[in-house]
Amino acid sequence: MIYGHDPRTGETVGAALPETDSAGVDLIVSAAAAAGAAWRATPAAERAAALESVADALAAHVDELWQLADQETALGEVRLRGEVARTAGQFRLFAEVIRDGGHLEAIIDHADPSTTPPRPDVRRMKHALQGVVAVFAASNFPFAFSVAGGDTASALAAGCPVVVKAHPGHPNTSERVAKLVREALPYPDLLGLVQGMRAGVDLVQHPGVVAAGFTGSVAGGKAIQRLIDEREVPIPFYGELGSVNPVVVLPSASAKEVATGFAASLTLGVGQFCTNPGLMFVPDDDELRNAIVEAVEGTSGGPMLAERIRDGYLGGVERLGELRLLAEGKPGEGSWAVTPKVFTADLDTFAEKLPGIGEECFGPTSIVVTYREISDLRPVLGRLEGSLTATVHSAEPDEAAEVAEVLAKKAGRLIWNGWPTGVAICWAMHHGGPWPAATTSYTSVGATAIGRWLAPTAYQDWPEALLPDELKDANPLSVPRRVDGRLEV
Amino acid sequence: MIYGHDPRTGETVGAALPETDSAGVDLIVSAAAAAGAAWRATPAAERAAALESVADALAAHVDELWQLADQETALGEVRLRGEVARTAGQFRLFAEVIRDGGHLEAIIDHADPSTTPPRPDVRRMKHALQGVVAVFAASNFPFAFSVAGGDTASALAAGCPVVVKAHPGHPNTSERVAKLVREALPYPDLLGLVQGMRAGVDLVQHPGVVAAGFTGSVAGGKAIQRLIDEREVPIPFYGELGSVNPVVVLPSASAKEVATGFAASLTLGVGQFCTNPGLMFVPDDDELRNAIVEAVEGTSGGPMLAERIRDGYLGGVERLGELRLLAEGKPGEGSWAVTPKVFTADLDTFAEKLPGIGEECFGPTSIVVTYREISDLRPVLGRLEGSLTATVHSAEPDEAAEVAEVLAKKAGRLIWNGWPTGVAICWAMHHGGPWPAATTSYTSVGATAIGRWLAPTAYQDWPEALLPDELKDANPLSVPRRVDGRLEV
Repeated sequence: MIYGHDPRTGETVGAALPETDSAGVDLIVSAAAAAGAAWRATPAAERAAALESVADALAAHVDELWQLADQETALGEVRLRGEVARTAGQFRLFAEVIRDGGHLEAIIDHADPSTTPPRPDVRRMKHALQGVVAVFAASNFPFAFSVAGGDTASALAAGCPVVVKAHPGHPNTSERVAKLVREALPYPDLLGLVQGMRAGVDLVQHPGVVAAGFTGSVAGGKAIQRLIDEREVPIPFYGELGSVNPVVVLPSASAKEVATGFAASLTLGVGQFCTNPGLMFVPDDDELRNAIVEAVEGTSGGPMLAERIRDGYLGGVERLGELRLLAEGKPGEGSWAVTPKVFTADLDTFAEKLPGIGEECFGPTSIVVTYREISDLRPVLGRLEGSLTATVHSAEPDEAAEVAEVLAKKAGRLIWNGWPTGVAICWAMHHGGPWPAATTSYTSVGATAIGRWLAPTAYQDWPEALLPDELKDANPLSVPRRVDGRLEV
Repeated sequence: MIYGHDPRTGETVGAALPETDSAGVDLIVSAAAAAGAAWRATPAAERAAALESVADALAAHVDELWQLADQETALGEVRLRGEVARTAGQFRLFAEVIRDGGHLEAIIDHADPSTTPPRPDVRRMKHALQGVVAVFAASNFPFAFSVAGGDTASALAAGCPVVVKAHPGHPNTSERVAKLVREALPYPDLLGLVQGMRAGVDLVQHPGVVAAGFTGSVAGGKAIQRLIDEREVPIPFYGELGSVNPVVVLPSASAKEVATGFAASLTLGVGQFCTNPGLMFVPDDDELRNAIVEAVEGTSGGPMLAERIRDGYLGGVERLGELRLLAEGKPGEGSWAVTPKVFTADLDTFAEKLPGIGEECFGPTSIVVTYREISDLRPVLGRLEGSLTATVHSAEPDEAAEVAEVLAKKAGRLIWNGWPTGVAICWAMHHGGPWPAATTSYTSVGATAIGRWLAPTAYQDWPEALLPDELKDANPLSVPRRVDGRLEV
């Protein structure tokens, strides 16, 4: 059986939930596949309305949901209410995306008898993948990257059924959310939920599964990739793995703003963000250093999401102990509580310890690396692993040009005078980056995330009666298209 | 040393070419990477002009090129002249693509202070991958899928340098084409060429390589994937592997047109096309059967591209011998010549032998499967492997609806009353399909093939001075963009 646990006490909370056995996984995937055939044939406008019903259901149950999740995650009311709103917002964004239709990338090339050989009529658009999407829920977002998270919203929007492997950190929240979503969908089996590690293995190796999404550790992502490699038919694996999220503070930046912003971003949600600023390069300057020390000492720790995650943090902090401790926050309260800790090193010392020292330690810890000259940064930044984000603090773009150029090779999102935690849900967002930040060049947040669950079909001289509406000459659904080389909106 | 061979005689032709050793591969990849940095920074309009220079150089040397390739492939003047023109056309299409800029998928979401939390300004576009693209040339297209083939054209267009592993079937043609392309590019090292199997291993495992393209067999593709799996940093693998290309002839189709079209498509280029029609379902009808026998008996074989490919064909045909031989063409002339052979079975017999009997046999052979009722086809079509194409012959779209629905799950391109050989070079083409036709949902032919070599970056509150021109408010390069949710062209 699987139990939720209260990070504040370490005690079990909620009901005992059975692990899903192999027969159960098979039933759930098969039911999802059957529902998926109807869903796929449902017009985009109706699918969009259904996504909005899911959003409404989540928003209507926020009082219940945040309390349930708080028992299992200790993330607190403000954060969890906000996260439910964000999660609903993701469904609304994808409703907008599929009403627009641009994600289908419809293209029409009319026949051209003047070429050698004569060109036939060729039309192309994307369709939902033919099968079930497996989603592995993350620990750190019990709503936004879990049962009704971004992967689920984007896959449902694309037209795919979804089976989620619940994260063991919040099994009761997962069950409740699944029930709400199933009730809001026209075909409840479009969303399945499985519990337990073994069920995750069965899920990703099930022949009815055609793609997998994952948010978690590098080790976890590699394990899933190995399971996929054992499949007879390979499937795409969209993993968001580790990220250290370097921040570069340039001399013109405001010391005070940097220090307070850094301490807040570092300790938000007990540092349990994929975009936590785990590494910050600062000028070798006493004022800034003192401001950072003061700001970090003003923070407090808290309970982490799971005992295993707490242990991972303690191990990581011990590893960072080979550097000098610069500052620490107040200890958090609760069974699985940890203390924010910031370490420091000069640029040469840090560079000597690469690549190991540059790996993510999940939780409220960071390394502040001091440098003398901006030009010294380039070779060191060039040796960092890929990250989801890279941030520059500066009052002068000219000063930042060289650093920006190197960071652009290292991260999927570049941030100016801000902090990486907090990912806006919008069309332009990219939440991904070079390995190990992500396993592919796709984003897992924002409108273009839907592309992961789509594949194109070309139709050659295909009769109008059998063409999808999106590719008929009259364009009855008014989707954006490229016709004979020209975009039409 | 590596030698080219004349398929008509089996004798070596051209110069003895050294295999590229590990140090050589490293030098070539490093030189490509260095040239790539400058290329990446070159404005799209200049890159487009350079691609057109390559096209011009290929077209200007067609007399020399077809003769050189004919010595090594025996594909003949008409086909090879056409293929050089097609190869030049691919460079011209990608010049058009990057002048347009739609492939960058530029998106701007202006800041929205009214949201909770306030949304920052987020802008996103795609950029060339940061490193070298490895291309594994195919045997069967010495120009269009080789050194200056589609993968090379699309990767150069994206802004990536390319190192090609030459196919041993046409090493001298490869060297000559590489020299022409290098001379036409502003930085010659943007295209590198390596020879030999060991060089291919070194290439795909080189840390400077960030993606690989491949056209070849399922076994070859799996071998490259295993080499990639051994890398410290994984890279995307865009493979186009096996495809049997089912054709379904419905009762209303014209027997005569089907028979002559089938025989021509089957034997074009000695059947050495990824899109060769390897499987055709026909009504159990004597008139059609007799027409097919007559048409196939009117064809002739010819020498295959390589001894190993000829041996593979003979082995495959032996395997198909468990079915009944329906018709064969005239034997071809030359050392590595083979004879077109068409086998037949009824639907039940064929279905019993699935999945093995449904695998591709590369060369001029096909299975004609007879059926009684259209409704009998559905379960059997549903068990076929993925293919690049699926074709329907019918005079009545209504009659084809059910078959079309099943085939749409099995192939990347659906063809009506045509033949799968011959792939139009245009915006809408999709040359891919479910495994094993392709390893990803990307195409390797047509405008959207450029997407394989691109990855997005998001810019959050990034200063105008440091933004790429494509994302500046004034849109100085006039690229298509989605601004605050609306497409603007």
